[in-house]
Amino acid sequence: MRDVAIIGAGITKFGELWNTSFRDLFVDAGARALEDAGLGGDEIDALYVGNMSAGQFIRQEHIGSLIADHAGLIPAPCTRVEAACASGGLALREAFISVGAGINDIVVAGGIEKMTDLLTDQTNGVLGALADREWEAFVGTTYPGLYALMARRHMHKYGTTREQMAKVAVKNHKNGALNPYAQYQREITVDHVLNSPPVADPLTTLDSSPISDGGAALVLASADIAKEYTDTPIIITGSGQASGTLSLHDRKSLTEIPATVHASEIAYKMAGVKPEDIDVAEVHDCFTIAEIMATEDLGFCEKGEGGKIIEENETEIGGKIPINTSGGLKSKGHPLGATGIAQGVEIVTQLKEEAGKRQVDGVEIGLTHNIGGSGGTGVVHIFERGD
Amino acid sequence: MRDVAIIGAGITKFGELWNTSFRDLFVDAGARALEDAGLGGDEIDALYVGNMSAGQFIRQEHIGSLIADHAGLIPAPCTRVEAACASGGLALREAFISVGAGINDIVVAGGIEKMTDLLTDQTNGVLGALADREWEAFVGTTYPGLYALMARRHMHKYGTTREQMAKVAVKNHKNGALNPYAQYQREITVDHVLNSPPVADPLTTLDSSPISDGGAALVLASADIAKEYTDTPIIITGSGQASGTLSLHDRKSLTEIPATVHASEIAYKMAGVKPEDIDVAEVHDCFTIAEIMATEDLGFCEKGEGGKIIEENETEIGGKIPINTSGGLKSKGHPLGATGIAQGVEIVTQLKEEAGKRQVDGVEIGLTHNIGGSGGTGVVHIFERGD
Repeated sequence: MRDVAIIGAGITKFGELWNTSFRDLFVDAGARALEDAGLGGDEIDALYVGNMSAGQFIRQEHIGSLIADHAGLIPAPCTRVEAACASGGLALREAFISVGAGINDIVVAGGIEKMTDLLTDQTNGVLGALADREWEAFVGTTYPGLYALMARRHMHKYGTTREQMAKVAVKNHKNGALNPYAQYQREITVDHVLNSPPVADPLTTLDSSPISDGGAALVLASADIAKEYTDTPIIITGSGQASGTLSLHDRKSLTEIPATVHASEIAYKMAGVKPEDIDVAEVHDCFTIAEIMATEDLGFCEKGEGGKIIEENETEIGGKIPINTSGGLKSKGHPLGATGIAQGVEIVTQLKEEAGKRQVDGVEIGLTHNIGGSGGTGVVHIFERGD
Repeated sequence: MRDVAIIGAGITKFGELWNTSFRDLFVDAGARALEDAGLGGDEIDALYVGNMSAGQFIRQEHIGSLIADHAGLIPAPCTRVEAACASGGLALREAFISVGAGINDIVVAGGIEKMTDLLTDQTNGVLGALADREWEAFVGTTYPGLYALMARRHMHKYGTTREQMAKVAVKNHKNGALNPYAQYQREITVDHVLNSPPVADPLTTLDSSPISDGGAALVLASADIAKEYTDTPIIITGSGQASGTLSLHDRKSLTEIPATVHASEIAYKMAGVKPEDIDVAEVHDCFTIAEIMATEDLGFCEKGEGGKIIEENETEIGGKIPINTSGGLKSKGHPLGATGIAQGVEIVTQLKEEAGKRQVDGVEIGLTHNIGGSGGTGVVHIFERGD
């Protein structure tokens, strides 16, 4: 495979975007990415788009055609990929592979979800589709319930505390307050988290990522072509994807997500780096416990010490390994299919030193970590400055 | 890109499979493909699966994890792709690209749809999701209605007759009667087609492909590795994908599907062949008029002569260019996401001269043509014997 670089990034505001349609959301993000790359639509060879469930949220499938059409990019091929909340990560990976293979030179990898057009009960019904419908959702298990089980077990096994989990949300809101695209741009406290309405004990509302609308896009090109467009190409040096069991009850442990471990091992090996080489990471914090487990499964600390490193401020901007500088899913928002791409947008922004008040100093290598469901799919990418 | 070969093919019976679950359908097809290839699951690097709308049909997304899990192939990555009825074609294309890129050596490309678990009205609602929900389905346009518009215009512009359209169904049922996996294994007559209940004038029930359950799978490997497993590898020499407008009313013409034209031009160029070099083709006959238009758009005859070549038996087994020897979507069945892969299974079977009573003599080069919706996505692949 030839080297692949990111030459443009774009993102919409995340939030309850009732005045923006599904199709407009994608075009908005894509146009920003093209503008950032300094190229026109006629230079795009292909598009990949991550979307979990437009079929259920807005009763529209065939998203690829819709997007190529509405963006005025016909006849460029546009392929939708889906892996629940990891759909965006997979879109990035497929775009990376297609440019690496040489079948395309310049490709847009986008992600999009429009979740707020349904009533809450209906949305919860849709979210059951990312767990195992027959063995989990059908018997009444909710998605927060699955992560609550993981949290309880992690607390029991490793002594992780409610306060440590709450601090993940506090940190991510602190970062999100500095991100103009974040759904919630305000700080919160540990007390706020602990006293917010319970969702699935021990998790509260403020332990949970929100329901969001949003779109994000990255422009990928072969490293040779990238030089024509930018002085600061960001090279994708590692890409790993792995499957885990769809159902939580089929796992050997509730406190580890094997798909994260497998995907990161592949990505680290491809990039020739180790966890300690990573300068900044966007990880999948759909719930606060998920970030704690991710920091362990990605190798940023020993197993069981995820609560400790958040307590000791190691994952803050300025800490040893800053995590979710964008605000993460928790504060930036979590439009399912867009999340994996939005993570890439943040890492590219950090590597280009364009993150403003949330900029991490001396960033050379970044990582994104995107999870589908309770861990049925894991995707990890590693990015390095190409200049 | 390195050369990519198909080393195994498997398919389930297509039909109303009320006793088989979604997850079992895929595993059934995949196991047959692995058996055909003579390899075990632990040799699989990755899977791609085409599925249009498990989210709406059975309320299950995250299909990739479900399939890798149920097939016992964890942690192999499994990526779901979707482009309405062209989902299977895209799964084949992404698998082809990933092996060509060298990121995977052996990959399963599968397709699956479980459509018969809903009531007819509900199914029709789901099918509205492959047209443009806001501009077509919302105002009452049905999917057969879109193809009926194309049929009427084709009849008006080129003098295509009802009898010519009916003869497409008659030919495909004649072929399907020879295919043990086909949903309808019985012959019909032109009178049967013309006198069957109307769906959307001029199309009748027997002009239309059925609602089906089914799965299909192909095993792909790099050409070098393929030699270790088979003496008759089938090389994928061409792959083309293109987008068209999602809505029919946005097209310049109702009698051509530009996505077919674009995708086939790319595939022919990659393979270095011309339409007259193709010995056998599986084309997307979701309605009889669709096969007539496809034969024209793929270059098997001049524009407007698609009705004539079916009337003159040129597309029969033994004719100049045998089309849909499997029975096509019309007789074999049309489980949406499985169709593009099932087309590949038939072409591989023909190229390996294993098609029994429906074998075409002297087959060297085959083609598959898969369409999403009314033409929003087109995918064309070309296959050649590698021995």
